[in-house]
Amino acid sequence: MVKPLKRVKCTVMYHGAHYSGWQVQNNVTSIQGLLEDILKTMHQRDVQVVGSGRTDAKVHALGQVFHFDTELNLNEAEWMKAFNRQLPMDIKIIEVLFVSKQFHARYSVVRKQYEYLIYQGEIQPFNYETHACIEPHLHRDNMRKAMSVFIGTHDFSAFCGNSYAETPNQVRTIFRFELEDEGDVLRFTIEGDGFMRHMIRMMMACIIDIGKGKLKISDAKRILESKDKTAYSGVAEPCGLYLTEVEYPEGQ
Amino acid sequence: MVKPLKRVKCTVMYHGAHYSGWQVQNNVTSIQGLLEDILKTMHQRDVQVVGSGRTDAKVHALGQVFHFDTELNLNEAEWMKAFNRQLPMDIKIIEVLFVSKQFHARYSVVRKQYEYLIYQGEIQPFNYETHACIEPHLHRDNMRKAMSVFIGTHDFSAFCGNSYAETPNQVRTIFRFELEDEGDVLRFTIEGDGFMRHMIRMMMACIIDIGKGKLKISDAKRILESKDKTAYSGVAEPCGLYLTEVEYPEGQ
Repeated sequence: MVKPLKRVKCTVMYHGAHYSGWQVQNNVTSIQGLLEDILKTMHQRDVQVVGSGRTDAKVHALGQVFHFDTELNLNEAEWMKAFNRQLPMDIKIIEVLFVSKQFHARYSVVRKQYEYLIYQGEIQPFNYETHACIEPHLHRDNMRKAMSVFIGTHDFSAFCGNSYAETPNQVRTIFRFELEDEGDVLRFTIEGDGFMRHMIRMMMACIIDIGKGKLKISDAKRILESKDKTAYSGVAEPCGLYLTEVEYPEGQ
Repeated sequence: MVKPLKRVKCTVMYHGAHYSGWQVQNNVTSIQGLLEDILKTMHQRDVQVVGSGRTDAKVHALGQVFHFDTELNLNEAEWMKAFNRQLPMDIKIIEVLFVSKQFHARYSVVRKQYEYLIYQGEIQPFNYETHACIEPHLHRDNMRKAMSVFIGTHDFSAFCGNSYAETPNQVRTIFRFELEDEGDVLRFTIEGDGFMRHMIRMMMACIIDIGKGKLKISDAKRILESKDKTAYSGVAEPCGLYLTEVEYPEGQ
């Protein structure tokens, strides 16, 4: 007799420096791979971990979300303990909730939030894995003006590493894109209905180029409107990027 | 003909998480060992690196100081570049100065400053290597009172991992011992004329025990005055400790 499966939603925090990213790949260590290894040992069968989306190598998460289905009889607190006992110190499950089968970590997403941290100064032993380090004097006003170009619903083909074969529809909506000046650190917060491969890092590279005076504000608009995948090739460093929050419909 | 040797004083910052400490030991990676490896390759001979003192495994430094003698014809900026090109990202030379032969990184020290960082909350992927993590509600006033017990000149035998054979004189002077409450983080600053093995970590363990209510303020005084190496065995975690500054006489 097959036991009924329960769906488990987990929120995970990770320091991405030593990982090849979220997604399982051959011969490298991924967050998803480590989680699936733990679940395989516990279930004595393959268990698929479905994330809200990928994060690139060296990218961090404060609140990545995934789900899996299980027949095991652990409660939410026991799942949290079981994972954290087996995970390395740089990955930690911070919430476990039983959810209905309607919940899907990727398809149910309504909003994702990321942060990008720039340390304004030299790269150092205590920031090289957690911040993009850029010499000071970035032009904040121009960066903010460039950020406003991206807010709203646009075809982001020119700021996206996905082919049309992979992702036919490259229209996305950015709800919020803000910059807080914290002195040594510039904190960018970006929220949208979804982000494609390299999308945030390409927008950030363009914004940084504008902050440095290498590009003009009008270049951001021109590149975006071109929808041309060869129009811009900048990709900001992964180590400054954090997936901070994934939002689902009320009650999920 | 033997070329004249120049003495070079260097200040080095390191994230200690992945090192077995400052001091060269067999079969493990030390900061001193990495520096001596670089100098050996550059000089084609063994070159001794003399540090201001040891730091334990996993302890960090913002301003450790060392010296070495060289016959090579590099200027100060070239030395800095040569080191940093060859060092891993978690070790960085931040100052290089030519000094007289009177300067000695260990014997010339007049004052050393350390900081100890406690994160008041759960251990997490972004703090486990850089802070001691302790649940909140440490009693700050009692900790400050205990710290004041240590200020001044005392025989620190009871708070020291060195035997008398290694270190016959265990009298040291603490000039300053302060606690800043930064919200999530408690920052302890301690300055003295010198610190013996585990001395700061043993005092910190005692102060934390007092903050938790496991020991009384009077216990700090009693243990210190006992000069008894069996009176107390606590040693606070190394990952919260930073060697922040080493001071030398004016002009060195």
